[in-house]
Amino acid sequence: MSNALTEQNAAKMLLEAEDILIICHKNPDGDTLGSGFAMWSTLHRLKKRARIVCDSAFPGRYGYMLDKYNRDRCEDFEPRFILAVDTAAKELMGESLVSLASETNLCIDHHMLNGGYAENLLLDAKSASCCEIIARVIDEMGVTIDGYAAQCLYTGLATDTGCFRYSNTTSGTHLLAARLFDIGIDYEMLNRILFETKTRARVELERRALAGMEYACGGKLAFMTITQEMLATAGADPSEVEGITAIPRTIEGVEAGVTLRELPTGTYKVSVRTFTVDASKIAAIFGGGGHVRAAGFECSGTPYDIKVAVVAALERELSI
Amino acid sequence: MSNALTEQNAAKMLLEAEDILIICHKNPDGDTLGSGFAMWSTLHRLKKRARIVCDSAFPGRYGYMLDKYNRDRCEDFEPRFILAVDTAAKELMGESLVSLASETNLCIDHHMLNGGYAENLLLDAKSASCCEIIARVIDEMGVTIDGYAAQCLYTGLATDTGCFRYSNTTSGTHLLAARLFDIGIDYEMLNRILFETKTRARVELERRALAGMEYACGGKLAFMTITQEMLATAGADPSEVEGITAIPRTIEGVEAGVTLRELPTGTYKVSVRTFTVDASKIAAIFGGGGHVRAAGFECSGTPYDIKVAVVAALERELSI
Repeated sequence: MSNALTEQNAAKMLLEAEDILIICHKNPDGDTLGSGFAMWSTLHRLKKRARIVCDSAFPGRYGYMLDKYNRDRCEDFEPRFILAVDTAAKELMGESLVSLASETNLCIDHHMLNGGYAENLLLDAKSASCCEIIARVIDEMGVTIDGYAAQCLYTGLATDTGCFRYSNTTSGTHLLAARLFDIGIDYEMLNRILFETKTRARVELERRALAGMEYACGGKLAFMTITQEMLATAGADPSEVEGITAIPRTIEGVEAGVTLRELPTGTYKVSVRTFTVDASKIAAIFGGGGHVRAAGFECSGTPYDIKVAVVAALERELSI
Repeated sequence: MSNALTEQNAAKMLLEAEDILIICHKNPDGDTLGSGFAMWSTLHRLKKRARIVCDSAFPGRYGYMLDKYNRDRCEDFEPRFILAVDTAAKELMGESLVSLASETNLCIDHHMLNGGYAENLLLDAKSASCCEIIARVIDEMGVTIDGYAAQCLYTGLATDTGCFRYSNTTSGTHLLAARLFDIGIDYEMLNRILFETKTRARVELERRALAGMEYACGGKLAFMTITQEMLATAGADPSEVEGITAIPRTIEGVEAGVTLRELPTGTYKVSVRTFTVDASKIAAIFGGGGHVRAAGFECSGTPYDIKVAVVAALERELSI
């Protein structure tokens, strides 16, 4: 297991480090990228050589963080210090980088179940985003957060909390947001990119998914089904399905929203999102798992068979 | 015109007032109700008699503010002081209350174009919500914001900023949110009620609206049409159409989102939402008006005719 660090320890370690490789997790989200780019710019301002690596391509929507990086980055060095950000397990580094897990000097993360693969770990599971921890480390490093870093940090803060909507949001999240606003960020542009833009394929996919919405248990359960055929006709790729499982639960009176997503193999990935019901109990019945309000499992069978089984489980186990 | 007050003046006036009538604007939203109920509870804690009036019924979603009010309110008095909150013009008091406009002692508001109907006016157009001003007045009154008032204030703060997403959000908004979190509010419940609940009729209406989405100007323009027949078959009432006009503009590449909504008379109410284009210019061509990013007009004709005219206007006037 890793040595547990404080923000101060981590800051000292980074101030002493040279030629730093920053690893963001695969299928990167706003928090791992915001953390990576904010720390990269901090190290760059300290005249240290640093670069960011990721097993996956950077999604186009985060391009506003890349321009400065592409202009200023320095690729030409052999790493002497490896930092992983927002990366809970070595598998999340992805195939091309997993071999670096055992050489990782420091991991900064907010996932309770961090695997402890790094030599040193700064973990705060109470922070809604990894970016909140990164901001505290930058403060401890004695570097002023500039407009670029503020924009990166806001990205992680806002995306991991659904723009201050999810239950992980804390007063600390709002306090940091206030500070980043005062530093000066184009939050209008950022919120537009992060929360108000859907591809046409995604809109088409939502339309088809809504068309097939079905209710059970007197309206307390809503089912949505996404088939491979729907993905193909909507022209949507798998990344455009992200977040769609949140839709059934938003309907008034629905306590459990269940999304059946057909995989290329023909089996189904089933997501269970709930308000009052324990989603992980339902998922466990089918050999899956997860959290109290968001869990999932995989199973084969027709959508009809799966729905009948889920309704039976909900009625039997939870008397909803 | 009204006398301009500071928060200190307004606080002094309210501390001296007795038997206070609080007016919320008609078709009340979260900000006018949050302002009204937060101030009512403050006055109640000072052992003053106060009650809230509104020309419209309180929407059911705001029921969490009503329980305590219904338990503790005192209706049995002749008003000796009238306070209007978040009410920019006397017409917004509604038919049953407009006669009180000239007797209103104090108006607290954040709308730049407040009509100045009240004797005294505390106006701060830089505040994203009226609740931010109310919080400062409560502070000046020397009353501690308790959990109930915090919940009311958060309601206004969150609804008027689209949960900290709109461009009116400031660092002050986030700072107050942080403070309300620390006082202790069930923000998870509040965000669920305020932002994550749609009626089944609304979901059905969205599905039908998405099915009819059309694009023009190489994808820079998106049209959505809501007919009376769609409202009827979805079982949606007019209040469930609110916010639907935001949808077309959320599609990637769309610079102008135009929603045609058929009125019971058969004419169309057309909403124009834009990012870079001046929406008020487009609306003005058709005799309407509004803001740079949100404007509208009414016109008769078939949806096809209206769309052709809008496309021509956009191409001619703005070369998009």
